[in-house]
Amino acid sequence: MSWEKEYTSGQRRVGKLETKSGVTPTPVFMPIATKGAVKHLLPEEVKALGASVILGNTYHLWLRPGNELIARAGGLHKFMDWDGLILTDSGGFQVFSLGARAKERFGMSGVKISEEGVEFSDPKNGNRYFLSPEISIDIQLDLGSDIIMVLDECPPYPCTREYAKSSLERTTRWAKRAKEHFEEKVKGREKRPLLFGIIQGSVYEDLRQESAKQLLEIGFDGYAIGGVAVGEPRETLKDVLAWTLPSIPEDKPRYLMGLGRPEEIVRAVEAGVDMFDCVIPTREGRHGRLFIWTGEDLNLEGSFYETINIGNEQHREDFSPVDSLCDCHLCTHYTRAYLRHLFTVDEPLAGRLASVHNLRFYLRMMEKLREK
Amino acid sequence: MSWEKEYTSGQRRVGKLETKSGVTPTPVFMPIATKGAVKHLLPEEVKALGASVILGNTYHLWLRPGNELIARAGGLHKFMDWDGLILTDSGGFQVFSLGARAKERFGMSGVKISEEGVEFSDPKNGNRYFLSPEISIDIQLDLGSDIIMVLDECPPYPCTREYAKSSLERTTRWAKRAKEHFEEKVKGREKRPLLFGIIQGSVYEDLRQESAKQLLEIGFDGYAIGGVAVGEPRETLKDVLAWTLPSIPEDKPRYLMGLGRPEEIVRAVEAGVDMFDCVIPTREGRHGRLFIWTGEDLNLEGSFYETINIGNEQHREDFSPVDSLCDCHLCTHYTRAYLRHLFTVDEPLAGRLASVHNLRFYLRMMEKLREK
Repeated sequence: MSWEKEYTSGQRRVGKLETKSGVTPTPVFMPIATKGAVKHLLPEEVKALGASVILGNTYHLWLRPGNELIARAGGLHKFMDWDGLILTDSGGFQVFSLGARAKERFGMSGVKISEEGVEFSDPKNGNRYFLSPEISIDIQLDLGSDIIMVLDECPPYPCTREYAKSSLERTTRWAKRAKEHFEEKVKGREKRPLLFGIIQGSVYEDLRQESAKQLLEIGFDGYAIGGVAVGEPRETLKDVLAWTLPSIPEDKPRYLMGLGRPEEIVRAVEAGVDMFDCVIPTREGRHGRLFIWTGEDLNLEGSFYETINIGNEQHREDFSPVDSLCDCHLCTHYTRAYLRHLFTVDEPLAGRLASVHNLRFYLRMMEKLREK
Repeated sequence: MSWEKEYTSGQRRVGKLETKSGVTPTPVFMPIATKGAVKHLLPEEVKALGASVILGNTYHLWLRPGNELIARAGGLHKFMDWDGLILTDSGGFQVFSLGARAKERFGMSGVKISEEGVEFSDPKNGNRYFLSPEISIDIQLDLGSDIIMVLDECPPYPCTREYAKSSLERTTRWAKRAKEHFEEKVKGREKRPLLFGIIQGSVYEDLRQESAKQLLEIGFDGYAIGGVAVGEPRETLKDVLAWTLPSIPEDKPRYLMGLGRPEEIVRAVEAGVDMFDCVIPTREGRHGRLFIWTGEDLNLEGSFYETINIGNEQHREDFSPVDSLCDCHLCTHYTRAYLRHLFTVDEPLAGRLASVHNLRFYLRMMEKLREK
């Protein structure tokens, strides 16, 4: 059993997840360290903001600097000096989303999916690569990940029922191969990573349930809900969670991939989700969009926060903190006018301070969501 | 008396400079905070690296966000959260060097020097501005600078004797106006900034001495040597220092503007210079060029260090520290392979870590130069 319950309130679950590198409380938000670094920040700063798990992108690290190099460096934890937990994705999502870019740029055939795996081009240089369920496991083991995701096919939205069905069936077959390969590779290891399956099925209730059922038969340490945040209407999320979560055994961690806005995370936690990752806080921060507390109490409507564009003229001479309810370095040491100035003149410190603030906002929201 | 001697060895002087915001030991290297931030770094980090004074650029802060805004924010120290010392330049150097860019870009008349002052275009938008000795003082007072530089005309290299002579004479007349205006503005203030004059005269011995003599007659708290590092041969520096330094009274601080390579700083300290500023450590750091200790003993030839390009293929799998003799965060927590990876994939942390390292190199060199 990898996840342990400490407290529940309705569907909300507060607990802890144990991995080979330590324990994280849940619900947990995992900052994105795409290429082996949370943009602008040192790992010790990310930890001080309240993070216990970060997400590394298998696709990016595989292509540059390469999983073998990271393995020789002693694994991703050591390479990037992070002593917390690392979850790595399978690489599949980027293969599909960046494959189109390579096609555009190099006029190449783009992404070719076969039963064996998926062939794609590196959009930086056009080089062809091949990813399979087994290769994805091997790369993630090289990285030294604590939570490994199986390779799935992530269908776009909208997607016909027929495509969604054949895609989820392939995802199941891939998940089975991944599990078998994983078991063989970690056999005899004292400390082994967790392996998570990914539930697909697009926006079709029976397909989501079918996908969950098939993955449960294979058996994983945790279950992710994939294929969300790919362009579907926002209201769909509630349905997807309602169709999917009841199928997952209570003692298994539940991970909603790639989401979301603060109110989406609150809603998902209230529905029983334990784990989240999202580029929003860091990416929006780098573009000068900051999350501001407007009240201490979380709610499903998201009326506990607002966002501001620090570049707006109205902040030019605003000598108040970005967020007077926030305890981060930006809000306790600087004014809106200063941060606006840094963005206006393209100082790298701008993106750094905004990332600190937005991550602190998200991580503090998770602290509140873990309160009993 | 603003500078106090603690120790001398040959021409090298170790001492301390007192300002309204506190004391700095000398010889001192001042990191560049052009637009109100040392690029990538928090002030507390810059201080922890060993910095006691930073340099703010009057030109940049005047244009954006504006000296009046910074004054309303409580001054530059408070605006950027730096509790150490601040030296501001006069703005003149950027007016001359960036004026050419505005001319190119907007086809405008560029820089127009008159007895009254200098008119120029903002290369960002073509707006016309006018800077005079008095305006430069007003801006620097608004910024709350601890060490204020007078506006000088900085002739290019090469420069005829005639031009150098008429230019230094104008610099003297401007220095006199600046001093008078400064005295009037700070009259009655308990805490007043220091005011430094700038010795010009290009590469002409008698003109350098003439400039020093004229400025001494006006009387300043310290004396800078300007018009170096503008393209003249490197050997010239030794001559310029030899012609100029003996003219400056022993109890006045001596500031060599805009220099330099490590061995140039060592040579200048051995010749009796107290203060330095230079973009080299931070700018070269951001481009992946790092200063590495090769020995503990400083010397005039610069054989105590080398530079590496971290982007070079040879560092790809080098799991040793960037500099095994360095005590900075980069060198105690990361490998060359990791830093090279960050540069290769354009992670903002790359420039941050390289800036930390190069600044630490320079600031540690200054610590050695202050040893008795």
